[in-house]
Amino acid sequence: MKLLEEAIMNKGKILGGDVLKVDAFLNHQIDPKLTEQMAEEFYSHFKDKNITKVVTIESSGIAPAIMTALKLDVPMVFIKKTTPSTMLHPLSETIHSFTKNKDVTICIDQEYISEQDNVLFIDDFLANGEAYRGVELLMKKANAKIGGVGIVIEKSFQKGHQYIVESGIDFIALASIKKFNEGIIEFN
Amino acid sequence: MKLLEEAIMNKGKILGGDVLKVDAFLNHQIDPKLTEQMAEEFYSHFKDKNITKVVTIESSGIAPAIMTALKLDVPMVFIKKTTPSTMLHPLSETIHSFTKNKDVTICIDQEYISEQDNVLFIDDFLANGEAYRGVELLMKKANAKIGGVGIVIEKSFQKGHQYIVESGIDFIALASIKKFNEGIIEFN
Repeated sequence: MKLLEEAIMNKGKILGGDVLKVDAFLNHQIDPKLTEQMAEEFYSHFKDKNITKVVTIESSGIAPAIMTALKLDVPMVFIKKTTPSTMLHPLSETIHSFTKNKDVTICIDQEYISEQDNVLFIDDFLANGEAYRGVELLMKKANAKIGGVGIVIEKSFQKGHQYIVESGIDFIALASIKKFNEGIIEFN
Repeated sequence: MKLLEEAIMNKGKILGGDVLKVDAFLNHQIDPKLTEQMAEEFYSHFKDKNITKVVTIESSGIAPAIMTALKLDVPMVFIKKTTPSTMLHPLSETIHSFTKNKDVTICIDQEYISEQDNVLFIDDFLANGEAYRGVELLMKKANAKIGGVGIVIEKSFQKGHQYIVESGIDFIALASIKKFNEGIIEFN
């Protein structure tokens, strides 16, 4: 997605250790028009795939996920990074965040996901795929099917890309980074 | 907002201690069409108020905030409940969450908020106004003006409502709960 690649090049910052910071338009400040265009791309790709629910993990996935859900005309559910005491039927998994270097428990209420569901998982980033594998386990516990995965920015040289592609899931990344070459981003 | 009141009555659950759980359409599963209608209400109310940025706190405010920002054609910034190590110019405040019964540090990067900004603060709930007061302090530190506050659901019998109204800020709540009367919700 050309506009997204331009935003990454113009507004992204490369920190040490292959970390791309896009706080200017995706992870802290959010560009609503760009987000809507992302949603349009996800919609175009998945509109005939009988998606029943869009699922994301709080927080940065919520904006593209809600706009995609609006276009697909299905509910959106955001997986929580805490287990609220008021949640009646929690399903949870522990994942490791490499960025934050700690384990995080992710949680969804069974009430909102079932064996009837064909889920489109939307997230802001795909790197090692830890979050995705956690979601995969949660959906398995809920007997729901993952019908597609839509990622805003992936680093295709890390493990997540290959894992999802090899699992045969319908997958799209709107910007796919091949490598960081001395501060220059090379896209696939 | 009629549709929202209906959603609260049909899908909300009243837990002990005046806690309203709306995980079915606002706080966990999100109804995208209802969210868009919320955004339309916020847009109608604030469209002539020279808003330069929509600000919310992660996570449940993000969906209504991004859709409102899209309509107002301004960026959205979500305040974080952690201080990321990659944030260069953090401004932070500690607020008390009565629901979770713990202190939470909220944080925004100065880079995305300045004295040029006239902010519309959007949030899912207003009860005691702890979150709002934290945001007020953060905006003060950033020298930004709060030009309006848009709340999805307020409990007008708790302290937050009066605090905001008395401060003279342009304020709208899309659903305003007067009291819980033996399990029945009375709206203002």
